[in-house]
Amino acid sequence: MAVRKGNTLFLETAPSVISYGAVGSKKESEGPLAAAFDRLWEDSTLGEDTWEKAECRLQKEAIRIALEKGELSPKDLQVIFAGDLLNQCSSSIYGLRELGVPFVGLYGACSTMAESLAMAALFIEGGFGERAAAITSSHFCSAERQFRFPLEYGGQRTPTSQWTVTGSGAAILGRKAAPPYVRAVTIGSIIDMGITDANNMGAAMAPAAADTLRRFFRDSGMAPADFDLIATGDLGQVGSDLLREVMEKEGCPLEGRHNDCGLMIYDRERQQVEAGGSGCGCSASVLCAYLLPALQRGELKNLLFMATGALMSTTAVQQGESIPGIAHLVWLSQEPGGK
Amino acid sequence: MAVRKGNTLFLETAPSVISYGAVGSKKESEGPLAAAFDRLWEDSTLGEDTWEKAECRLQKEAIRIALEKGELSPKDLQVIFAGDLLNQCSSSIYGLRELGVPFVGLYGACSTMAESLAMAALFIEGGFGERAAAITSSHFCSAERQFRFPLEYGGQRTPTSQWTVTGSGAAILGRKAAPPYVRAVTIGSIIDMGITDANNMGAAMAPAAADTLRRFFRDSGMAPADFDLIATGDLGQVGSDLLREVMEKEGCPLEGRHNDCGLMIYDRERQQVEAGGSGCGCSASVLCAYLLPALQRGELKNLLFMATGALMSTTAVQQGESIPGIAHLVWLSQEPGGK
Repeated sequence: MAVRKGNTLFLETAPSVISYGAVGSKKESEGPLAAAFDRLWEDSTLGEDTWEKAECRLQKEAIRIALEKGELSPKDLQVIFAGDLLNQCSSSIYGLRELGVPFVGLYGACSTMAESLAMAALFIEGGFGERAAAITSSHFCSAERQFRFPLEYGGQRTPTSQWTVTGSGAAILGRKAAPPYVRAVTIGSIIDMGITDANNMGAAMAPAAADTLRRFFRDSGMAPADFDLIATGDLGQVGSDLLREVMEKEGCPLEGRHNDCGLMIYDRERQQVEAGGSGCGCSASVLCAYLLPALQRGELKNLLFMATGALMSTTAVQQGESIPGIAHLVWLSQEPGGK
Repeated sequence: MAVRKGNTLFLETAPSVISYGAVGSKKESEGPLAAAFDRLWEDSTLGEDTWEKAECRLQKEAIRIALEKGELSPKDLQVIFAGDLLNQCSSSIYGLRELGVPFVGLYGACSTMAESLAMAALFIEGGFGERAAAITSSHFCSAERQFRFPLEYGGQRTPTSQWTVTGSGAAILGRKAAPPYVRAVTIGSIIDMGITDANNMGAAMAPAAADTLRRFFRDSGMAPADFDLIATGDLGQVGSDLLREVMEKEGCPLEGRHNDCGLMIYDRERQQVEAGGSGCGCSASVLCAYLLPALQRGELKNLLFMATGALMSTTAVQQGESIPGIAHLVWLSQEPGGK
């Protein structure tokens, strides 16, 4: 049974990620992680007639690939934890409706991959099923029109803005005596530091990232140097700088162990993505294309995966509200936990 | 440890609902359950300057009351499972951000109360914490403007339409050797029968309700007569008639044991609510105002609580998509499970 210390649950029954899939589109195919993706579409419509349907297709393909690689069928899953950025989580709902798998809809904005992974790991740890899937997605075009401006408007992008990844990642958790194992989970709290700029998500999320990270280190008695990599979700450059600064000030410098999925997926020099990548699909696809395989191959031994979400509602922001952030953390390791 | 049979998890460690709170507004104060609410506001703005802020306030008050009645503080909660109908679940996020409690955002449309209750029960069953809260809300005015028309438009309502409840319910789960106990949980799958009428949510949800109910009876070997009440979320009259008809046809008639939260909360004769009440706050407030106290007092011995959700995205519906439904089920009982 899991051991709770503070806000962190240490898993004792060695749930592991048994399969995964990552998909993306054109911009992702031009980035440094392109070769790691399972599938990339040159055309970001994916042949669908709306951006929203294209995003559904991303999730559909990511879970299909994860199932296929694991030699599994949807019937082998006892639950799917999924959500996305679109209103009513419609990419997940329409993308996954045909599977016929019990469905727990989540909303965690860009923290969704860590949220779903954490929930799936607890589901397995609790003995509630043999296999649980975690999945999310984002699409640049559907996100822009919902949260900012329709693409046709041709709005200028500010330097702090981030580029929503067109991609999806799906992970299937279960029990297989092989890494990557999920060792611990820290569920984050909502942190609101009063940021109101919808083009500066990094700043809205960094305090939440610092809060969760601080709790994890306190609960675990571990330090940044105990990890090969602390991969935050999509803080981008602005949020990453803020996070490192805050952690340094609090006497817990990240010691060169930190990188951000939003900085890994694109080449900021070449790709005109301003402060970096973002969107649920950012951390999801970086996790499933790059981080999980690196853990499996032993190139990474201990990873803190912490997806961060800016819980931004356009209605609330128009009513003068600030943008709260949240960050959930999952410790993934080559070694299982327990005794 | 929970025992899985088919899609149903039977809980063995006797998690129970240790406290709860229910709040509503004017229309709810005129309905048959008025006396059971903890607090009712005559003015549906609750003194706030937008409908959305009023809805946040509903959640804030519901959890405050639940904590107070349980002699608990936010620090006593290890997690909150919450969500609502508004885009980006903003009522939950803004309503609960000040608590500082680890937050798992859910999206299940009007199924959210059963979804959050199920997740909270599994959290306790899994030994992941001492106490977990489940909460959701809805507000007639914020829902109308987001999903249909702004109130100022004065649109006519169709006979199949339902009236979104302005209310919230919060339940705190933990371990206290007292009823109501959570005995079992069935997580539903997404069911889409091709309904496209945004004013007929009952018809979109009834097939999902039938699917989950069918699985529960098959998994448990029980029958409708084993329950004092099968309370569906908010099928209203149209969806309730459909559910009963489908179950009858399949050889599992509900034998007069079925009622719907959407039909309990308002008096359809007097209150002009068309097919009945709806919204996440409907099943949440009926559960926390009326059903949980009835279980506690022994007036109900075994209850199936099954909130149903129409996973409707206005964008998807405008793009010609149908409206998928989902239903999650929680068996609540005066007697604990396990050996």
